[in-house]
Amino acid sequence: MTAKPVFKNIALLGVGLIGGSIGEAICARSLAEEVVGIDREAKNLRAAKRRSAIMRGTRDLARGVAEADLVIICTPVETIVELVGKVADATGPHCLITDVGSTKARIVAEIERNKAAAARFVGSHPLAGSERKGPGNADKNLLESQSVILTPTKKTDPATLRRLKRFWTSLGARTVTMRPAEHDRCIAAVSHLPHLVAAALTASTPDRELAQAASGWLDTTRIAAGDAEMWANILIDNRSHILKSASRFGKLVASMCRALEAGDRAALCKILQDAQEKRNSARSSDT
Amino acid sequence: MTAKPVFKNIALLGVGLIGGSIGEAICARSLAEEVVGIDREAKNLRAAKRRSAIMRGTRDLARGVAEADLVIICTPVETIVELVGKVADATGPHCLITDVGSTKARIVAEIERNKAAAARFVGSHPLAGSERKGPGNADKNLLESQSVILTPTKKTDPATLRRLKRFWTSLGARTVTMRPAEHDRCIAAVSHLPHLVAAALTASTPDRELAQAASGWLDTTRIAAGDAEMWANILIDNRSHILKSASRFGKLVASMCRALEAGDRAALCKILQDAQEKRNSARSSDT
Repeated sequence: MTAKPVFKNIALLGVGLIGGSIGEAICARSLAEEVVGIDREAKNLRAAKRRSAIMRGTRDLARGVAEADLVIICTPVETIVELVGKVADATGPHCLITDVGSTKARIVAEIERNKAAAARFVGSHPLAGSERKGPGNADKNLLESQSVILTPTKKTDPATLRRLKRFWTSLGARTVTMRPAEHDRCIAAVSHLPHLVAAALTASTPDRELAQAASGWLDTTRIAAGDAEMWANILIDNRSHILKSASRFGKLVASMCRALEAGDRAALCKILQDAQEKRNSARSSDT
Repeated sequence: MTAKPVFKNIALLGVGLIGGSIGEAICARSLAEEVVGIDREAKNLRAAKRRSAIMRGTRDLARGVAEADLVIICTPVETIVELVGKVADATGPHCLITDVGSTKARIVAEIERNKAAAARFVGSHPLAGSERKGPGNADKNLLESQSVILTPTKKTDPATLRRLKRFWTSLGARTVTMRPAEHDRCIAAVSHLPHLVAAALTASTPDRELAQAASGWLDTTRIAAGDAEMWANILIDNRSHILKSASRFGKLVASMCRALEAGDRAALCKILQDAQEKRNSARSSDT
């Protein structure tokens, strides 16, 4: 793995699980001369430095991004727009900006209202994560072979997009390009609705039965251990697409329940067969 | 692991994933002098023999169980009652019989109508499995540290129950005792509803979005790859308890969707927090 460095000085704004993992991947592959971590929590900066996710850390945004030619915003979705504005103000036109937020339509639209930011920003969403938090759970291979969705718009400079694609590819990821709204529709189906469903399944399981929860329940509910505040903001941000996905899901649950009530084995089996085939056709790298 | 053998001659009726895994565990731990596999499919018997899950195989039930002092029925739930009757007819009073079915109330009640069978039968349900099928996917450690629920009734001989508990424990499992109805209520919540939900989530995911399915979707839907016919029979068998669990689940999904529609971040966050805490409190052996 000897990809060519695309940027010289990378600043990670937020060194939690994702920021820390990106930093570890950059450092392990020697993909930048300087990797600066910026975080409100000094302990995150210390942990990230200890794990070689960053070369130096600061709590001062302006100082952290001063020399950067790439700033990656790795903070919760509700903070991204404001931080992109601050980074744009604190850096020159040569500095590109991206994020790793799980929603895109609102974020990109709001950023593009700020001309100085719009010219240097492309949204990114690495489809990798964990129910765990913080730089202590970072993993330099988190992005390896995973997708990063990039969401350029008509305002995006094609050269900027190409550089960001090369950057993510240099970390071992493969890039996919979608419009912001297309991203949100897709991620509602494959990430946000699954989170809502896993949380509802977990919360609805009676405490007295939990002792018998085995691998099926544990796998189906794993993502429900994710940070509630963070996920509440994501789900609200993408609610229109999630509600459409939830409606499709609800209709299928209702069909299965009607088949159970009627003892209609054939109708039930048909849905289970559709699911079995679709699940088997999905990427099977989940072992 | 040098547990003392509890039985001398064990017959496994059905050498698929579960039968094969039990056979491999028995043979690897030298827990019987003879392990006989009985299956309708000669290829399953050959695969089980090749993997040292059985010492010999036969497609003839009466011949297979003739010398057994324990017969374990490892076949789909809809076949268990009839097979227990056949085994009871083909064996003497010294031979104990159990099963590994995922539902218990109907099966145990029907078996107990047959006095000869009732005196020698206790229901078992090892809480271990896989979405995969067949002896080729068997795993001699499948039961290691997993629960096996035993479902004795008033008609059960306490000595029989004790022997079966010792047997499952000798395979590395821990045993839990429940009434059949209690088992079905519990398993509806922690296994059967999760299967229904995972299948509905899978079937409702638009094909065009599947390429972006990452670890969250893959974990949440893993069990939906399980055999549709087998699961249709399980779900129908336990439908009254599953419908109650599904109703609790549906109410929570509806609450979350209402909170999304209303943009009620606090209400949404509360449910996500309940789920996060409950998921973190559950056994965390799912890594």
